[in-house]
Amino acid sequence: MDKIRWGILGTGTIAHKFASDLKRVENAELTAAGSRSLQSAEAFCREFDIPLSFGSYEELAAHNEIDIVYIATPNHLHHPNTLLCLNHGKAVLCEKPFALNARQASEMITLARRKNIFLMDALWTKFLPHYQKMLEMVRSGKLGAIKMVRANFGFQANAEPDSRLLNPEMGGGSLMDIGIYNVFTALDILGEPDEISVSINATEQGIDEQCAVVFKYNSGAMASLFSSISANVETEVEICGTLGRLKLTAPFYDSASVLEHEADGKKNFIMTEKEEGLGYQYEARHATGCLLEGSAETMVVPHDYSILLMKTLDKIRDLAGIVFPDM
Amino acid sequence: MDKIRWGILGTGTIAHKFASDLKRVENAELTAAGSRSLQSAEAFCREFDIPLSFGSYEELAAHNEIDIVYIATPNHLHHPNTLLCLNHGKAVLCEKPFALNARQASEMITLARRKNIFLMDALWTKFLPHYQKMLEMVRSGKLGAIKMVRANFGFQANAEPDSRLLNPEMGGGSLMDIGIYNVFTALDILGEPDEISVSINATEQGIDEQCAVVFKYNSGAMASLFSSISANVETEVEICGTLGRLKLTAPFYDSASVLEHEADGKKNFIMTEKEEGLGYQYEARHATGCLLEGSAETMVVPHDYSILLMKTLDKIRDLAGIVFPDM
Repeated sequence: MDKIRWGILGTGTIAHKFASDLKRVENAELTAAGSRSLQSAEAFCREFDIPLSFGSYEELAAHNEIDIVYIATPNHLHHPNTLLCLNHGKAVLCEKPFALNARQASEMITLARRKNIFLMDALWTKFLPHYQKMLEMVRSGKLGAIKMVRANFGFQANAEPDSRLLNPEMGGGSLMDIGIYNVFTALDILGEPDEISVSINATEQGIDEQCAVVFKYNSGAMASLFSSISANVETEVEICGTLGRLKLTAPFYDSASVLEHEADGKKNFIMTEKEEGLGYQYEARHATGCLLEGSAETMVVPHDYSILLMKTLDKIRDLAGIVFPDM
Repeated sequence: MDKIRWGILGTGTIAHKFASDLKRVENAELTAAGSRSLQSAEAFCREFDIPLSFGSYEELAAHNEIDIVYIATPNHLHHPNTLLCLNHGKAVLCEKPFALNARQASEMITLARRKNIFLMDALWTKFLPHYQKMLEMVRSGKLGAIKMVRANFGFQANAEPDSRLLNPEMGGGSLMDIGIYNVFTALDILGEPDEISVSINATEQGIDEQCAVVFKYNSGAMASLFSSISANVETEVEICGTLGRLKLTAPFYDSASVLEHEADGKKNFIMTEKEEGLGYQYEARHATGCLLEGSAETMVVPHDYSILLMKTLDKIRDLAGIVFPDM
């Protein structure tokens, strides 16, 4: 292979963003798009000049001119859609949250491993240059011992009552939609917490409109994480170590975010490479590279990490009393 | 009375700050200072050109040329020192925390009311112009319905093991020292919480080196509060409403803090009066005014509010398992 042929399952907002950024990836071709409605798939294919459109997920998964499928469907479909593609021998990049729970994630990973097929959790912001630079600074010890991580992610969704965002059957709530970024950022910096405490504001449907999570570590470190789909909170990450403080400026998930470093009373901005696009090209480029190399797993988001993240989210929801049906 | 004669009990850091700012207050005279050590009192009096120095708290409390005493002793002495001064007929401005618990606070207030003497909880930042402007904006509805309040206050104390900051017998810990600012700010904006959850990192002595508090309201609002004496976290307040966001820039307790307002994608800074000094002159001026008017209670920090604040702190410590001996 010298070109990786991509298919996209789903034609919503995230599919649009990904398709737009995939144009920036060398050795990648956007070959197909599939939706439950042929009309949607055709409209999407016209918009992005994609040759193959399919009116069912099965047809796309089965087609022999596709190497990897990006799963861009709603949260509750990530698990069945991933299994479908893997069963048809397709590599998979699955949008976050990887699944609705750790059991589903394990099933997906077990199947990928058994078939030796590439499978990756689409934690796209992990591939952003400023995020990687942040991790490098934390791991180098430049900030000293990390004592506190704060991450807030919020927006005012004004969602209709039947929106996927509010629907427990579709894996709704602030935690699964955006709180997940806070959670994996804290995991990346401080590792698995020794204790978790959670407080949410539940909607009538029983999902979290706002979710406050505190991670506690035997080391003396803590993380304070807040997500909201009812408030436009400043979406920042702050990391406090004994030798200094680092901030991922708002919005921290954006490739335009900048690192603000403060130590000894001096503040300075650390610039990292800024490329045009929405930022999804970094993960797409990485996945394309993995396929070209014949790798079945990436060490940037290893399978065990995806399981840890899902287990942590399961525990948070359990503490909060958020129940997704049929789990 | 046309001049109010002040005495200061205690000669530590906060006493220095207050004495320095009291020079900026019209109709106030710094008349006396008292310490357990006459030497300390004399040194303090020389520094601030104060006529009367006393080597015991009792002597200062009993002296007939003093109208009001500012209690600047460590936390565990606020209650006995306040009772001492009130029993000698002196008005009292008592440094925060007002007491170690609500029971002590009630005793102090009951005595002041019975004797009809002015008593005020020294929540000095409430009197800062930018804090008052913030409250005005919240109460006017300009920010819409408030959904989230975030307040962080932290510094790296590097305290010795025998420091008052780490000593439970002296009311140590991050919550009582600085977390109290976060707590009363949330109370001022959102009122008494319907639910509280707390997570702390406890020291060997059993006090909180870091303390994360979440307030939950039946209205759908939440507050996320974090205090630390082991991490230099950015000391900001953020208030998110349905119509906009307001930030008290770091450090939010400082009279130099500025309000940053964001709505409809536009950010602007709201300037308030900035006067020289450390910011303690505002509360000192207010207390002086109350005495000149013959008032026994201020409506900016009413007695019932001090009780509510102490009860809230009691509940947080109870949930966290922080125990002060002999309570």
